[in-house]
Amino acid sequence: MSFHLPETVIIHEVVLRDGIQNEEKIISTDAKIALVEKLIRCGIRRIEVSSFVNPRLVPQMADAEKLWATIDRQEGVLFSALVLGNKSLDRAIECKVSHVGTFVSASETHSRKNSNRSVAEAAREAVELINRAKEAGMEVRAGVMNAFGCAYEGGVSVDRVLALVDEFMNIEADEICLADTSGMANPKQIGDTLPRLREIIGDTPLSLHLHNTRGVGLANVWEALQQGVALFDTSLGGLGGCPFIPGAKGNIATEDTIYMLHEMGLETNVDLDFLIETSRGFEELMGRKFPSMVSYLPGSASCDS
Amino acid sequence: MSFHLPETVIIHEVVLRDGIQNEEKIISTDAKIALVEKLIRCGIRRIEVSSFVNPRLVPQMADAEKLWATIDRQEGVLFSALVLGNKSLDRAIECKVSHVGTFVSASETHSRKNSNRSVAEAAREAVELINRAKEAGMEVRAGVMNAFGCAYEGGVSVDRVLALVDEFMNIEADEICLADTSGMANPKQIGDTLPRLREIIGDTPLSLHLHNTRGVGLANVWEALQQGVALFDTSLGGLGGCPFIPGAKGNIATEDTIYMLHEMGLETNVDLDFLIETSRGFEELMGRKFPSMVSYLPGSASCDS
Repeated sequence: MSFHLPETVIIHEVVLRDGIQNEEKIISTDAKIALVEKLIRCGIRRIEVSSFVNPRLVPQMADAEKLWATIDRQEGVLFSALVLGNKSLDRAIECKVSHVGTFVSASETHSRKNSNRSVAEAAREAVELINRAKEAGMEVRAGVMNAFGCAYEGGVSVDRVLALVDEFMNIEADEICLADTSGMANPKQIGDTLPRLREIIGDTPLSLHLHNTRGVGLANVWEALQQGVALFDTSLGGLGGCPFIPGAKGNIATEDTIYMLHEMGLETNVDLDFLIETSRGFEELMGRKFPSMVSYLPGSASCDS
Repeated sequence: MSFHLPETVIIHEVVLRDGIQNEEKIISTDAKIALVEKLIRCGIRRIEVSSFVNPRLVPQMADAEKLWATIDRQEGVLFSALVLGNKSLDRAIECKVSHVGTFVSASETHSRKNSNRSVAEAAREAVELINRAKEAGMEVRAGVMNAFGCAYEGGVSVDRVLALVDEFMNIEADEICLADTSGMANPKQIGDTLPRLREIIGDTPLSLHLHNTRGVGLANVWEALQQGVALFDTSLGGLGGCPFIPGAKGNIATEDTIYMLHEMGLETNVDLDFLIETSRGFEELMGRKFPSMVSYLPGSASCDS
């Protein structure tokens, strides 16, 4: 077969936000800073540092300001934050964050449960937020949550997803992200959806935020690569996802994703050996085994040789 | 995208052989029989009942004769055994087994460690064995182990794999199976290898025996489906694989595979709800959590609705 695959794939590391946001154990700011430094040494070039949310609702993100004030924002690394409303954006501006992401759910039920807004209301607010962020000189990625299915509603209409993306394109979002929030995407659906999306977004960068809830995460990556996607959100160790589902895995694991990419000859700029070492170190800190798989192989340090 | 996918996919269930062969806890023959009955009620139409091996080496398979004498060999269900030598085949003949599989490793190191034979010697013996099995009226599937990589040697030459398959085709094996014994296959490799294999085997049925050791199992399934593969070995709960690798997963899980297939609209004849129930029941018997993922979702019983 001759596959048309991107030569280089960029990893957007979300362990510090999606990965740990629901973990009960609060990670110290120092430990977060140390993790950021290690991820950069691994070769990761995009890191989601925090969200700006109500610390009473998400205690793990309470130190966002302190974290942003302390991390060494090295050249060549993109540091991003998730913003979810005007107050949230104000805090990001205050922290001089240069890249933000914001998301609207394509599922009416999830939108109401997650943000107490209809999809239309949430989209209107997101448009205002994105405009404000761009006026503040930020790069913005605009995303659709539950783009491939919803745990509450089941199927999600592609037309609704595309309509939201269209709104984001009208206000010139710098990047579009589709999130499989409930981990319900399948590779056929990825292959059916992305060409339609491309018609709307043209050459605008596209990222996929995939979960491995049902074991299909890397199958979706494989199909997305063939559809030209070269930017994936991943989480160290496969942390993240719903903590209320026993045994269910979270985001696709950075190390498993990189392993597969390297095995297929794609470049990521990431040192897999050191990444696995970093993941194991973070496991020790968290006191539990992560869902990633390549970390658990004997001699995994030579997996990509 | 318009994908060319098989409408119906056949599952070859290996939990009773590959799945439990290395489990320390010995499953009673009664429990195995009950499991076979449940798998049939789930809609599984191919079951690998046992291997015929030295019971001192694999105690879990010591009751093979008793099992074959007791199971109700229903019409429409294929009951298969793994045979590994002349004595093994004699036992299968004695048990009136009508479908057997036998494998040769494509890796010299693995072949010597696993069977104390070179690849060439093992292939010669397999050819004799297959001829004998066919003379005895059996259907035979002939397989290549480590077809996509070897934990000892790393890469495995496609030419060597194809040469083995060519030998099997010369003696009219009824089915060809490629086994990713070390769980090292990646989807690009599947896509690169299968068209070359098809040139040799034509319309001969092809099965893939995939492991999920590195999380890439279902990505490989997705690529294989596009290459026309409609027959997969899977193991209930994802049991199997190397028991000496902590946390490492085994065979691709039957329930996760079926979940993905159903989500993409492919038929399997399997009732996923009852399959998950069966897997959870077997987990209770084994006293531990299995690696499969869809079993652990709340409301997983409605996953495929």
